[in-house]
Amino acid sequence: MRNLSPSMFIGVAGKGVLSFGSGQPDLPPPTEVYSCLANYKAFKYGLIAGETNLREALAKEYRGYTKDNFIITNGASEALDLVIRAVGKPNDNVLLHTPYYYSYRPLVEMNYRKPLFVRTYKGKIDIDDFEENVHKAKAVLINSPSNPTGRIQEIKTLKIIEKMTDDLNIPLISDEVYKDLIYERENYMLSGRHVITINSFSKTFSMCGLRIGYLFSNDKSLVQKIIDMKSHTSMNTSIITQEMAYRATKVPRSFVKSQVRIWKERRNIIYRGMTELGLDLWKPEGAFYVLPKIKKPRNFVWDMFKKHKVITYLGEWFGAPERVRFSYALDTDKIEEGLKRVKKYLEKR
Amino acid sequence: MRNLSPSMFIGVAGKGVLSFGSGQPDLPPPTEVYSCLANYKAFKYGLIAGETNLREALAKEYRGYTKDNFIITNGASEALDLVIRAVGKPNDNVLLHTPYYYSYRPLVEMNYRKPLFVRTYKGKIDIDDFEENVHKAKAVLINSPSNPTGRIQEIKTLKIIEKMTDDLNIPLISDEVYKDLIYERENYMLSGRHVITINSFSKTFSMCGLRIGYLFSNDKSLVQKIIDMKSHTSMNTSIITQEMAYRATKVPRSFVKSQVRIWKERRNIIYRGMTELGLDLWKPEGAFYVLPKIKKPRNFVWDMFKKHKVITYLGEWFGAPERVRFSYALDTDKIEEGLKRVKKYLEKR
Repeated sequence: MRNLSPSMFIGVAGKGVLSFGSGQPDLPPPTEVYSCLANYKAFKYGLIAGETNLREALAKEYRGYTKDNFIITNGASEALDLVIRAVGKPNDNVLLHTPYYYSYRPLVEMNYRKPLFVRTYKGKIDIDDFEENVHKAKAVLINSPSNPTGRIQEIKTLKIIEKMTDDLNIPLISDEVYKDLIYERENYMLSGRHVITINSFSKTFSMCGLRIGYLFSNDKSLVQKIIDMKSHTSMNTSIITQEMAYRATKVPRSFVKSQVRIWKERRNIIYRGMTELGLDLWKPEGAFYVLPKIKKPRNFVWDMFKKHKVITYLGEWFGAPERVRFSYALDTDKIEEGLKRVKKYLEKR
Repeated sequence: MRNLSPSMFIGVAGKGVLSFGSGQPDLPPPTEVYSCLANYKAFKYGLIAGETNLREALAKEYRGYTKDNFIITNGASEALDLVIRAVGKPNDNVLLHTPYYYSYRPLVEMNYRKPLFVRTYKGKIDIDDFEENVHKAKAVLINSPSNPTGRIQEIKTLKIIEKMTDDLNIPLISDEVYKDLIYERENYMLSGRHVITINSFSKTFSMCGLRIGYLFSNDKSLVQKIIDMKSHTSMNTSIITQEMAYRATKVPRSFVKSQVRIWKERRNIIYRGMTELGLDLWKPEGAFYVLPKIKKPRNFVWDMFKKHKVITYLGEWFGAPERVRFSYALDTDKIEEGLKRVKKYLEKR
């Protein structure tokens, strides 16, 4: 039990095992994504920033930006890594709000920066704590909707953060990979001179394994710096995957809306179910995670897996040591079945 | 002319412009590579280390290794970046031999390590200089066949380097992306406890733009460390590109042999042609580059491009400030035409 880690769950779902672990859609991508493959023949290096057609399509989606503001990356992960490497220098503080996506801390530390944590209350940023700490930071990383909390930040809060970071002239990195999966309102996109927005095709179009993300910013010198770095660290993102992503940009918006309806139904089932079990949790407003408080979470994650064949993730991987993360990227009947198994476990204990 | 850089040449070849610039095969990949695409439907995350079928196929190619020694990466570039990040710590010296591949120095410096340069004579490592410096290094990076010199290191030299680094217990990183493109002998693969070998499908199978490389090592704890890092920096390499690479592993060896014949013919033409022009250069033994000495190389690269429509790369990008790199990834008639234009330039000056 000592070595609980996400990797122990790889490849074990199915065969009666229900996975609330990995944060990826179970629903397939739109069929248009595969339509370019039958006659695909390209093989040469592409532009480091990404293919022109894809960047132009993205520029249309985000008003006020042109293709030259964009870089296509190997998933949002590479975008994040590149941005953290490009801003500031070793020992700089990077401000994160807890609980945080589990790669944030390792990425900050792998690049010799220091994470500086800001409190949240029910998943919402404590703006006083933010204000107290932001002066010590050389960059700020915001994630709304959040993995692992499923919570979105208030527009009021986001506007204050925009202003404070702009006044301080520090980069504001906004990880908006769940921007299309919000149940409560439209996404509020952070913007400003020093904002770098990170997004991905993984969640919106179910393309996780294809690894296609992007970043964009008004700060052209930063964009150029990142292109220069990427020309050494990985060069262009796979040209065939970029073409698939380009096809995704042509998919009618109704695809995304129908996905959100499915996610919302699942959200309602798991939220109601967990509330009925008496668990202390926040209602997800976006993404597809719940993060209930669980007594002895390590025992829970271990026993649920070993005795009840249910995969869940330890909150401590996300900076929430008293909690457990459930991804509800599962059919509703599987969610119901999972809830039954959790109930059984909680009753026994 | 001040801002000469490889990026100025992107997208300008064709329309009468001959490119001896970018280091990528002009020949297409084997058709088998595309055979998996018509019915491709996968979309979920893959294993961070890479797909099992691909790693097993590679393990068969390299005796003494199993799939668990391998990590599939976004080209050799990502493999290099990950290895440099994984070995040692900031301010460590990483030993490089000059001239070097143009990403080595930025990758070392981007990761806050320091390049420590060792001399070569006619592209061959000066083993005395190596011995004098290796004690100050925390890692060694060897590239044979070399980009940009086209030279291979003597087997005797490679064996001494294997022994010295093993005695010193330091990682020996061997970038062998041109191992299948040697004209003179079989590749000598560096091996040992602390050797990390980097390779790619880009050059052997003309898959540059698809970005598929790999690394392997006997040092399982280092392999695990790199998998952990990659789980944050980019996650799995694009699953569709991996499947294409898997198909490439099934291509008969005769494909590679026929490629080498083509490269060798081109090598002979450009080497003979430049010798006849009186240029001082080393005979390429592998890869597809020549690196002649050129007076006023900045003027040469600029004028050849602007006045003679020939793209070449400045040797100073590769640590060889008195030279100019020509990639001969071109049809023989284009090589002949390029040589004529060089002749014209040299006669005028």
